This record gives sequence, C-alpha cells and structure tokens, in this order.
Amino acid sequence: MALKVSNRAGVSPFIVMDVMRAANERAAAGGDVLHLEVGQPGHGAPEGAIRAAERALRSERLGYTDACGYPELRERIALHYRGAYGVGVDPASVMVTTGSSAAFMLAFVGAFDVGDRVALAAPGYPAYRNILSALGLEPVWLETGPEHRFQPTPELLDKVEGGIDGLIVASPSNPTGTMLDQGAMQALVDACRARGIRLISDEIYHGIEFTGRAVSALEFGDDAIVVNSFSKYYAMTGWRLGWLVLPDDLRRPVECLGQNLYISPPAVSQAAGLAAMDCHEELDLVVAGYRRNRDLLLEELPKAGFDKLAPADGAFYIYADIGHLSDDSQDFCKRMLAQTGVAATPGIDFDPARGRRYMRFSFAGPEAEMAEAAKRLRKWLQG
Amino acid sequence: MALKVSNRAGVSPFIVMDVMRAANERAAAGGDVLHLEVGQPGHGAPEGAIRAAERALRSERLGYTDACGYPELRERIALHYRGAYGVGVDPASVMVTTGSSAAFMLAFVGAFDVGDRVALAAPGYPAYRNILSALGLEPVWLETGPEHRFQPTPELLDKVEGGIDGLIVASPSNPTGTMLDQGAMQALVDACRARGIRLISDEIYHGIEFTGRAVSALEFGDDAIVVNSFSKYYAMTGWRLGWLVLPDDLRRPVECLGQNLYISPPAVSQAAGLAAMDCHEELDLVVAGYRRNRDLLLEELPKAGFDKLAPADGAFYIYADIGHLSDDSQDFCKRMLAQTGVAATPGIDFDPARGRRYMRFSFAGPEAEMAEAAKRLRKWLQG
Repeated sequence: MALKVSNRAGVSPFIVMDVMRAANERAAAGGDVLHLEVGQPGHGAPEGAIRAAERALRSERLGYTDACGYPELRERIALHYRGAYGVGVDPASVMVTTGSSAAFMLAFVGAFDVGDRVALAAPGYPAYRNILSALGLEPVWLETGPEHRFQPTPELLDKVEGGIDGLIVASPSNPTGTMLDQGAMQALVDACRARGIRLISDEIYHGIEFTGRAVSALEFGDDAIVVNSFSKYYAMTGWRLGWLVLPDDLRRPVECLGQNLYISPPAVSQAAGLAAMDCHEELDLVVAGYRRNRDLLLEELPKAGFDKLAPADGAFYIYADIGHLSDDSQDFCKRMLAQTGVAATPGIDFDPARGRRYMRFSFAGPEAEMAEAAKRLRKWLQG
Repeated sequence: MALKVSNRAGVSPFIVMDVMRAANERAAAGGDVLHLEVGQPGHGAPEGAIRAAERALRSERLGYTDACGYPELRERIALHYRGAYGVGVDPASVMVTTGSSAAFMLAFVGAFDVGDRVALAAPGYPAYRNILSALGLEPVWLETGPEHRFQPTPELLDKVEGGIDGLIVASPSNPTGTMLDQGAMQALVDACRARGIRLISDEIYHGIEFTGRAVSALEFGDDAIVVNSFSKYYAMTGWRLGWLVLPDDLRRPVECLGQNLYISPPAVSQAAGLAAMDCHEELDLVVAGYRRNRDLLLEELPKAGFDKLAPADGAFYIYADIGHLSDDSQDFCKRMLAQTGVAATPGIDFDPARGRRYMRFSFAGPEAEMAEAAKRLRKWLQG
C-alpha cells in the first residue's frame, strides 16, 4: 500500500539552491563562476571564535546545554542590546537557538496555532512562508514595492481581509536590503500593539548597515519577538547559532518547546559565538568590504542596464527590477550564468507572484569578483 | 492588548530537567549528587572526532553545507548499514540532521498532515508526543507493560479505535531499555505495511546493546523511516548531529523541508561525526563500561528493594516499577535525592497515566557512582 506524503511537505525548494547547483556544475566542468547568488558571508568565523572553539573542544565535555543556551552567552547577548541600541534586556528573556531557523520555528509554534494567519512582505525570505506552511499556519502576503521601500506598513496591514495573528518584519530585508527607520519601525510596533498582532522582528542582518543605523523593535517596547543570528554579521553560518529575545509571556512556553524540539543549541558553537561577540575589529573590516562591494555595484550595475535597484540600506543584497530586460527572471538568470559565468538569484524565490521581473545580486563575496561581474554584465547587455 | 500564547505551546516541560535543576542546586549548596537521572553519556566525543573538528576549524570555512549534509558523511552512514546490519542503503536516502530532534521533526512534517494520528508506546520518550502535538498531530498511546516487553505489537495496534497514520517504535527503548528481536520487528514492519501505517523506527541507541543485536527496521524493507543519532553510542550529544534514512517517496520533500526548517546541520559536527564513525575501539570501551554499570545495578538494585525491573537489553536505562514503594514517583524521587543524593527520573515524564508508579535509572555515568548509589539506596530502603 502506497503511503502518503504530507500536503505540507510540498514546500518549494529554494531556487537559489538550484542556481548554486548549476553554478557548481559549471565550475566542475572547468567554467569560471562569479558567485553573486549566495546569501552567506564569504569570510568564515572570526579568529577569536575559532580559538574559543578550539579551547572548548579540549576543555569541555560538550554535552547538552540548557535548552536556552549557556547562561554566560545569554548574558552577553543581553548586554549587546545595551551597547548597540541603548535598550535594557533581561538575560532571562534571551534564548540561544540553533540558528535563526530554530528561532523562527520556536516563535511560530509558541505564538500561533494551526490555522492562524501571519502577514509578511513580498518580496521576502522564502523560508518564512515555508516554515509557516509546514506548521499549518497561513502566510498572508503584503505586496510591497519601491513605494513602500519593500517594507510592511500599517496601511498595508489594514488592507488585509480577515484577521491577522502575526506579522513578520525584516530590517534590513532579504532580498531588498531596505531598512525601516525609527519612525517606520515605531509605527509598525504601535500598529501591531493596537490590533493585537504578534510582531516578529527579524534582525539577522543587523550590524551590516550602510545608510543609517538598523533599528530594533525592542527600542519601542518588549512585546515583540526578536530573532537574530550569528550567521551574518558574525559570519558563522555553518555553526547554526542564533537567538530569540522573547516577551515575558512566551519565555517559559518557548523554553519547554525548545527542550522538546531541539534539546539544546550546539555547544561548540555557543562557546565560539560568545567569543565572536568581542571580535568587532575583525568583523567591521568584513563589513567595510561589503560596503565597497555595494558601492561598486550601485555604481556599475546601472551602467550595465540594471538601473532599477532597491536601496541597499543594509544586508548584502541588491534587488533589481529587470522588467525591461526579461519577463522570466529564472530564464534570465540561467542565460546570464551560461553566457557570463555570473550567478545570481531569480526573484521568484522571494515573491512567487511578481518575482519573474526581479532578481537578487548578493555582494557577500570578494571585491574582485564584484568588479569582474559588473564588467561582464555590462559587456553582456551593452555589447 | 494581551496577545495569546498558542495552545500547542502548552507542552509539558521535561520533569528530568527539573530533577537536574534540583540536583544541581544540591551540588551548588555543597551536597554531593550521584547522577542517575541524566540521559546522556558521561564521556565526550571520541578523540578522533575531536581531532577532526580541530582540523575542520582551521581548514574549512564552515559555511552552510548541503541541506542533506556532507556527501562523504552520507556515504559513510550508508556504508555503516552494510557493516552493522548487512543491508544495502543508497547514500541518497541518507539525510544528515541537526540531532535526532531535527530528524523526528522532518519525518513528522514530511509524512503527516495536521490532525493525523501517530501511535507510540507508553512509556516512551516524552519529546515524541510533544513534537507531535506542536505540529498539530495527535499522539495515540499504546499502553505497554512487562507482558509486551514495553514495546508496541500488531495486536496493540489493532486495538486502537479510529485510524492510525503512523507508528513510532524505539528499540532499544527509552526509558525501558527493551529491544525488539527480529521476529518482533518484522511483525511490526509487516503490520504497518499491511495497514498503510508509516513506520518511524527510532534507532538512536543502536550500538549500546547487551543481550543481543539491535535490529534495524531496514532489515525488512526500505519503507520505514529510520532515525539515528551521534548522541548516544558516539557520545556526541552537544554536537547536535543525527540522521534519517528515508524511503524514496520522502527523499525530495524532506530535503526541501530541511532547506527551509534547518538550512543545514552544523558543519563542524559533521566533520567530527565522520571521524567518529571510525572510532569503534574507543567507543566500544565506553559501552563495556555501560555493561559493567548495568550488571552492577541489575545485581544491586533488587537488594535495595527495586526488584521489578524492565529488561535492560540496550541503551543505558533501567525502568523500575516502584508501585510497592510509592504511588507518587515524583515525590519519591524528590525524597530520594534529598535523603541519599541519588538523582533519578520519575516515570511521569515517560508515561503520564501510569508513570506515578515507575522511575528510570540511567547508568550512563561513572562506575563508581553506580556502586555508591546502589549502596546508599540499599541503606535508605533497607536501613
């Protein structure tokens, strides 16, 4: 008897993974590839983190930790909010997680029941909607455009038909890089509070910011769920380490969920992450490199013909409207890779409805690759 | 406006965590504690694994890996089935996961939809039912006793009213240590196949076996989902590494789920886990220690008055019926800790309905602690 596969298992693969596979195949066949598709830092963890991991390997047993993480890491993270945002955070409200992936899962399971509706911006990070769907929640799109700086607004919230139980906001955003300023963040926090909507603020790109300061939802109260990660600014993707800052009412329920769903975050990663939080000198050099990449691409991409770009306020992405170049971004990216060796991600990963006319460039890679990519794209499109 | 906490966030905490906290408080206050409550190996990762992690820290960037894990680790795991069970496994059916926690989550989300019903033995590992509930699935108890060797049987399955979509089986079992022999496992595989029930075989204690060989569900076909882990035999709890062997129909859906829900398992842990699979000499010495602990407790606990013990075929647990000593195992364990310093886990973690008359001893700790614990318990109960 054939067994069923669940309906919710029918989540889309990340198209970016297929792009990466195609890029790797090209590289394996001897072709050169410029990686502007990858959403992870080109650098590895800072030296201080590596050393701390080496020490932990020899001095600790590396068993299960508390489900909320090492107390000293929770304290260090709480302290970070004082330094970075001038906000007091109780270490007991901090939960260390197995990457932001676990943080989202725990936040969603803790706050929402099957059938609940969670709003989020399109374009946005594809895993949001796929995690929501896997948990029996309904993603509700807020279609944003350049006129909203690709961010949710109270007005967009109010236009949604039917009730909304939650809102996910990401500033800086993936794929657009746009940030909410203080006024815009406060307006969203207030709107959610007034409407009884649980706000989840994805702040994983904080620290990688170019046009101003990334604002935390915690600056406007402690009722938002904040998600952060060691994968971006701290450049520790494969370590799978992130954190939650939780409102009071969710602390204990989410701790119990964490015990059951994850047991604990990886121990070596926690030791390394604690040290990484004091490696600003090294990490800020990496961000300075992102800034050079960004400035270069913002200068050169328009010359190649990519002249409708979202403001890259932060993160390491440029979201380009290519409606004048193609009506099928997947095909466009495929041809671009084949003909120039430049890999980038079609917008359909981020916005199933409108992503055919958008694509995302990531500038997390080496500066030389950015310059070469810009040169090839200009030649490709301008001849 | 007060926001709701989800109903499904109301999962029980692990009582064992509260026991651990009480034990740690006692230790912090200067009292001595013998840890027979902890479900993790007293040893850390084998030396070969530590060395491989050290090499990886310096030679790899440790970014995201493939969502299914490093290809060489998948191949090594597949090879393990040939060696340990004489079964051919396609590396493409192996998915490396962030501990068995992630493996269960991915298996449940991949195979079951909201409202589906999954049967499992009581007593059993509490996270099963809590993960199921968090995902909107309904756990269906199969009440097992000594007469079933605390394992599900086709007859117990048939007694369930209403349909069943899945069955979880664990051999060796936590908390009872009992194993299914070949006939019993085959009967379950056949029963599930005939009834269209998705079988999930938790094999995380394989390798820690005393009375015979632990049997894999894969010996009777490739339609079961097999879950395994580096946390028990390989003694790598805090590394958060496990794996799934998936039937064909679930490979691609579960890969896509893994991309979204986890991105990838921890990279350092994968490098260490690959090396651990060749550290049998060191690991088998650890198992020999478990065996000495087991033999000692099976000899001494009855003298103390714990004379109704489940067969400890494998794993590192002894499940004791203490109905003649107490009708409240939580209170009994609390008094035992206070009066003897011996920490153990009340059965209610594993069997909410009947656990008040059971408790679990873990013998994963040092041999000297086992001997001392047995001595104290004998003095405590026999005077």
